Amino acid sequence: MILAEIAAALDAHVEGDSTLVIRRAVHPSEAEGPEDLALAMDKDLLALLPGSKAVAAVVAEGAEVPDGIQARIVVKRPRYAMAGLLDVFEKPVHAEPGIHPMAFVAPDAVVADDASIAPFAYVGPRARIEAGVVILPHVTVGADAVIGAGSLLHPGARIGERVVLGARCIIHPNAAVGNDGFSFVTPEPGSVESAKTTGRVVGTNVLIRRVNSIGTVILGDDVEIGAGSAIDRGTVTATRIGNGTKIDNLVQIGHNVQIGTNCMLCGHVGVAGSAIIGDRVVLAGKVGVADHVKIGSDAVVAGNSGVGTDIPAKSVYMGYPAVPRARAFEQYKGLARLKRLFAEVADLKARLHAVDGVGAAPPVASSEPEQD
Amino acid sequence: MILAEIAAALDAHVEGDSTLVIRRAVHPSEAEGPEDLALAMDKDLLALLPGSKAVAAVVAEGAEVPDGIQARIVVKRPRYAMAGLLDVFEKPVHAEPGIHPMAFVAPDAVVADDASIAPFAYVGPRARIEAGVVILPHVTVGADAVIGAGSLLHPGARIGERVVLGARCIIHPNAAVGNDGFSFVTPEPGSVESAKTTGRVVGTNVLIRRVNSIGTVILGDDVEIGAGSAIDRGTVTATRIGNGTKIDNLVQIGHNVQIGTNCMLCGHVGVAGSAIIGDRVVLAGKVGVADHVKIGSDAVVAGNSGVGTDIPAKSVYMGYPAVPRARAFEQYKGLARLKRLFAEVADLKARLHAVDGVGAAPPVASSEPEQD
Amino acid sequence: MILAEIAAALDAHVEGDSTLVIRRAVHPSEAEGPEDLALAMDKDLLALLPGSKAVAAVVAEGAEVPDGIQARIVVKRPRYAMAGLLDVFEKPVHAEPGIHPMAFVAPDAVVADDASIAPFAYVGPRARIEAGVVILPHVTVGADAVIGAGSLLHPGARIGERVVLGARCIIHPNAAVGNDGFSFVTPEPGSVESAKTTGRVVGTNVLIRRVNSIGTVILGDDVEIGAGSAIDRGTVTATRIGNGTKIDNLVQIGHNVQIGTNCMLCGHVGVAGSAIIGDRVVLAGKVGVADHVKIGSDAVVAGNSGVGTDIPAKSVYMGYPAVPRARAFEQYKGLARLKRLFAEVADLKARLHAVDGVGAAPPVASSEPEQD
Repeated sequence: MILAEIAAALDAHVEGDSTLVIRRAVHPSEAEGPEDLALAMDKDLLALLPGSKAVAAVVAEGAEVPDGIQARIVVKRPRYAMAGLLDVFEKPVHAEPGIHPMAFVAPDAVVADDASIAPFAYVGPRARIEAGVVILPHVTVGADAVIGAGSLLHPGARIGERVVLGARCIIHPNAAVGNDGFSFVTPEPGSVESAKTTGRVVGTNVLIRRVNSIGTVILGDDVEIGAGSAIDRGTVTATRIGNGTKIDNLVQIGHNVQIGTNCMLCGHVGVAGSAIIGDRVVLAGKVGVADHVKIGSDAVVAGNSGVGTDIPAKSVYMGYPAVPRARAFEQYKGLARLKRLFAEVADLKARLHAVDGVGAAPPVASSEPEQD
Repeated sequence: MILAEIAAALDAHVEGDSTLVIRRAVHPSEAEGPEDLALAMDKDLLALLPGSKAVAAVVAEGAEVPDGIQARIVVKRPRYAMAGLLDVFEKPVHAEPGIHPMAFVAPDAVVADDASIAPFAYVGPRARIEAGVVILPHVTVGADAVIGAGSLLHPGARIGERVVLGARCIIHPNAAVGNDGFSFVTPEPGSVESAKTTGRVVGTNVLIRRVNSIGTVILGDDVEIGAGSAIDRGTVTATRIGNGTKIDNLVQIGHNVQIGTNCMLCGHVGVAGSAIIGDRVVLAGKVGVADHVKIGSDAVVAGNSGVGTDIPAKSVYMGYPAVPRARAFEQYKGLARLKRLFAEVADLKARLHAVDGVGAAPPVASSEPEQD
Repeated sequence: MILAEIAAALDAHVEGDSTLVIRRAVHPSEAEGPEDLALAMDKDLLALLPGSKAVAAVVAEGAEVPDGIQARIVVKRPRYAMAGLLDVFEKPVHAEPGIHPMAFVAPDAVVADDASIAPFAYVGPRARIEAGVVILPHVTVGADAVIGAGSLLHPGARIGERVVLGARCIIHPNAAVGNDGFSFVTPEPGSVESAKTTGRVVGTNVLIRRVNSIGTVILGDDVEIGAGSAIDRGTVTATRIGNGTKIDNLVQIGHNVQIGTNCMLCGHVGVAGSAIIGDRVVLAGKVGVADHVKIGSDAVVAGNSGVGTDIPAKSVYMGYPAVPRARAFEQYKGLARLKRLFAEVADLKARLHAVDGVGAAPPVASSEPEQD
């Protein structure tokens, strides 16, 4: 591939020799010769170019390159260009065509001719594997599941019974989609019900009865589920995740949850049962969302926040309990100044005592700011 | 099945034609005809009945149903009735009788005649699989493990060596029970030991030595372990989880932990090594429990809380660090009002300066409540 | 094995009959006879010795033992001695020599003669399995991966393509190393970018483009990855974890993260993309680290903390957002006293009103400390 072709794929232009032949895209310090294209789109990477063995580089607009660089691709939005570059230089996962003899496919499952099913993959009764699907080793596809065209199931992915995946979904290693929901009930109101309403524990959960889930999970097109994540199926109907939504590793989605399109849920996010999340919502790492909560479209929730109440569309929330970002910042600022406030109040108390003589004379306090 | 039979299973009564034949239980909006029983036990679902194709419904006491509904089952405690309904309409997982030829069972493992062992399941040496156990694809049962009668192991469940499961346990997909504990030690006191005692790091962990776990995990009867959860085995003796305790997805239980009966641990809960949890304790989502902490029976801990100290029985705790719920609410209230308090103190300072002339004249501040 | 031999392995000495034959190391209450060595190195366990059937025990220096104990090994640092004892009495996992006929090994994979590969393990094309490696059932080793000498891969471990493990690594059940990173980009700045810079959501993520990861993961020697943990590969180069670093269960490590040597990351820790963590850093349970953050060597971060900014070497941090430990304690103390502060300020206000007559007369408030 020559530099000009790569630039064309990125909608960018080349400065210098655009006919250089390129074999790999690499970190500047890992370049081994003239066929390696150094990715140097931010200033830290750019600073490594002088020591690099590369003679071609991708840089941001306005970047200055050392003399050794004979040609460069100049891009406008580096992160976006990176996506294009890594499409060009993608390293697709190894998958052989057809059904491997060491796979198990139920006789009544339907598998597209061009699907790839690896050793030790299991495809259950009546499951449907559509065109171009790649199923890697140790994947379980439950009975009656549907895997949409072009989807990729990484090793150890578990697709539960009746689960439906849209087109081009990616299920990362050891993710489990379509698990039985965590739903139990006590004959009389249990301890959580009483704690929520009265703040006290009155019921005791001496009998716990399981509520079976007979629903399923429906994923839209282009959905990704990260490594080790767990998506529970609905109690009666379906847990749904809309087109284009991306879910990171170790995320937990409870039964009946409804998530819109193009959301991003980062690592360790937990969404409890029956929560409703709009479109294009971003939940940063470790955010917890309580059951039945509604989050409006385009909302952004900062990492580690605990969402216990509904969040309006287009808002930015943070904290535990999560509040609008400006208010959270104000609270943190207040907390940081609290020690000084205590000192100031003690000081006022002492001075007021000197004026009105009320109460005991407080010990002398200083209003000087303290170091910490 | 006729409506009267379903009502009998729920200990409820029918109003209207109790001889209607029912085939499925469905969400009101998903009913396709008269053989679908619409579940409409809360007011949101009830509101969907007028547009539903169902002619039979399950409703809460006192609910008014539209004319199209020819018969209804009336229940007292809807959530509890739901458990009964979903027992009646359960969709059991696909499992074929016997040991599949593509499974591996060690020659000296003992497997009950009526157990079901799926393709790609592995049962190690001397393991014992009791009556009615269902082992789905890709399950690993380690050497010397015991799987109690009627237990169900979902795809990808890992049962470590020597682990003992009671009767009717359910291990959800990709849960791992009986992992080596996370236990390491440094020859001299390490950085955590010094941080805890002095607040400073003096030791440095230049040598880390592994503490092997030679214990195991013992689960009581009717225990559930959620998808992707990890239960470490004891160092010398057993990590124990009592009868009827339910553990949700992605929960981490450290080595030597002791959990009583009928507890509920929700998604992403983490319990560090050697913690002791009583009976009927509820830990909501993402609760963290520090090592060696004791939590009394019937305690309830709110979501996202960090428990660093012992919690008494029957108490409700929340926050980080977790405190009694009333105190936590007071703290959140205080935080929310902090900005106003700063303004008030500034105002008092200015006014007191006018009285006593002490200090510099502070800038003018307002005690008016601010909007936020 | 006789008691003297065990003591020698621990660098400890025996008091009493050092020729006793020992078969097992047990919890004092689980001893069944004279061949069981009771581990009683802390005072709780020591208190169980009088009722134990053991006649030999391991105790800490200065401990008094009951008459029934005929011999004891006396150790100086009990936790460290425990590591030695559990090396002596280790129960190694069951593994048969050679490649099991029910395993799959690609024809061009290279497997050391003394490696052990269990049923249903998968070793992909060109992978290299070095001397003494043990691969348990249901493990996936991707194409071109390298498993260093003496490493142990537990059931369900997923080793991605091109991933390199050093010597003696342990990958616990269902851990996934080398997953595709969670990296997406929008053509125009997205909602998170605008939320971070302006506090408001202006962009909307209507188009999300995937950034493929073409890098890998490189683990040093003696690294452990806990059950269910997920380590993403680098975007262009490698996510790296240094020699001797131990990672607990359900931990998430994002793409491009660099972790030094001998770190300990406890359960549910999450480290976002491109963070840099020094040597011997300890992150307690559930700590979250934001992307691109740097944590200095020997730092200790307390459980549940959220780290959003760089942390200096040798410091102890806690809280959300994480601050130096002393400051965090001060903040918690302040929070706990906040209610009293509100009362004091109200009191001062009333008294000042009596002096200067400014404003309305506030309601009477008490400065008495309140109980809580």
